[in-house]
Amino acid sequence: MNLFYTDPQHITDMHFTLVAQEARHAIKVLRYRVGDMIHATDGCGGRFRGKIESVNNDEVIARIEEQACVPAPLPAVTLAIGMIKKRDRLEFAVEKAVELGAAQIIVFNGDRSEKTGVRMDRLKMTSLSAMKQSLRVWLPEISYCKSLGEVLDRHQPGRIGVADETIKPGGNRTLPGSDLQEFQGDEPSLIIIGPEGGFSESERERMTAEDVLPFSLGPYRLRTETAVVVVMSRILVSQG
Amino acid sequence: MNLFYTDPQHITDMHFTLVAQEARHAIKVLRYRVGDMIHATDGCGGRFRGKIESVNNDEVIARIEEQACVPAPLPAVTLAIGMIKKRDRLEFAVEKAVELGAAQIIVFNGDRSEKTGVRMDRLKMTSLSAMKQSLRVWLPEISYCKSLGEVLDRHQPGRIGVADETIKPGGNRTLPGSDLQEFQGDEPSLIIIGPEGGFSESERERMTAEDVLPFSLGPYRLRTETAVVVVMSRILVSQG
Repeated sequence: MNLFYTDPQHITDMHFTLVAQEARHAIKVLRYRVGDMIHATDGCGGRFRGKIESVNNDEVIARIEEQACVPAPLPAVTLAIGMIKKRDRLEFAVEKAVELGAAQIIVFNGDRSEKTGVRMDRLKMTSLSAMKQSLRVWLPEISYCKSLGEVLDRHQPGRIGVADETIKPGGNRTLPGSDLQEFQGDEPSLIIIGPEGGFSESERERMTAEDVLPFSLGPYRLRTETAVVVVMSRILVSQG
Repeated sequence: MNLFYTDPQHITDMHFTLVAQEARHAIKVLRYRVGDMIHATDGCGGRFRGKIESVNNDEVIARIEEQACVPAPLPAVTLAIGMIKKRDRLEFAVEKAVELGAAQIIVFNGDRSEKTGVRMDRLKMTSLSAMKQSLRVWLPEISYCKSLGEVLDRHQPGRIGVADETIKPGGNRTLPGSDLQEFQGDEPSLIIIGPEGGFSESERERMTAEDVLPFSLGPYRLRTETAVVVVMSRILVSQG
């Protein structure tokens, strides 16, 4: 099955329209024609099945035959991912976060991150493509913060956790990573995955001040993108 | 910390020797010198700390100052991964399986796999590099099977599970993926991650005959490499 994306502004009571790249992909690559059934999502919970009524160069119009409104994954997890220098690993981390149902994704530069530019347009494309591939219908908002401080300033109320390889499981106010139950309820949470190079002292102080709960993902060193998948697959357990 | 690999044949009671690429990496890239402390593993549980006594073009000899024998991760999970056409995704799957503690990795061609060559030498390098990166000291054996039948023929006694997106959680003799407890004990198991394109009828019949336990990883479509990480992070929970 193929799932296409259509912006809410291209959906009416009766029809949805694929435009630009989505339309071209449907027509040129997948060879959809008038009369075919086609599936689309608006990226905010709407799932549509429609019959194609017209096909132009850059536009596919389908009459809606069925629609559903799918609730967002629970709990709503905002994932703050420390910058990864290698672009393919960063894109992989974002792709997996979307596949596994993150509600929001923030990429941030830590004090110790090697400063590199981040192509947000590419990450948005990665994210869109991962949503469609996994047949999800919620497209996480993805944004950039220039520091961990900015991530914490922007954060709405809710619990905050941090995957921290320097802590020992079982220590004071820490969680073993195998037991992320604290984050498994319905309450939204922010999960911070540390940047390559770890946290600076001032970042640690800020997290302590904000009552951020550190957890360990075990005795081995995990790459940032691996930590993303491990955390998501353990927190969003209710979806399995 | 950097961890190097040295073949058991290059370890004596008193010394370990890095050769070839490992030696060159230590000398040329990381600039280790005589007198420096260096860490190595033999990939089968041995962890060594030694002081460098001599450095040649292609050889680093260190006197062992400390050594430990680390037990293998439990449970011993053999992961049979259906062929992934895109090489970077296959390498990613192998890298993550090693990072998360798989005991053995088998890449197999399913009946419906698009036939593509597989560069086992590259996968072995990926696997070695992932072991060192994650500071693990057990290097999983990695091999290729030309069919699922061959995977099952070779398998030693122990439980077998299969991640199957076509089954509905809660069905007869199936497990929800959130609850892989059946595979979390100390008993070794074989976990099959279906190939892109799914299983053929005859593959399904063979699995039924072998009493393979299907489990679901949830209602969304996961890419093969994502399923690998989700399964490993849920089974090897005791390590977190």
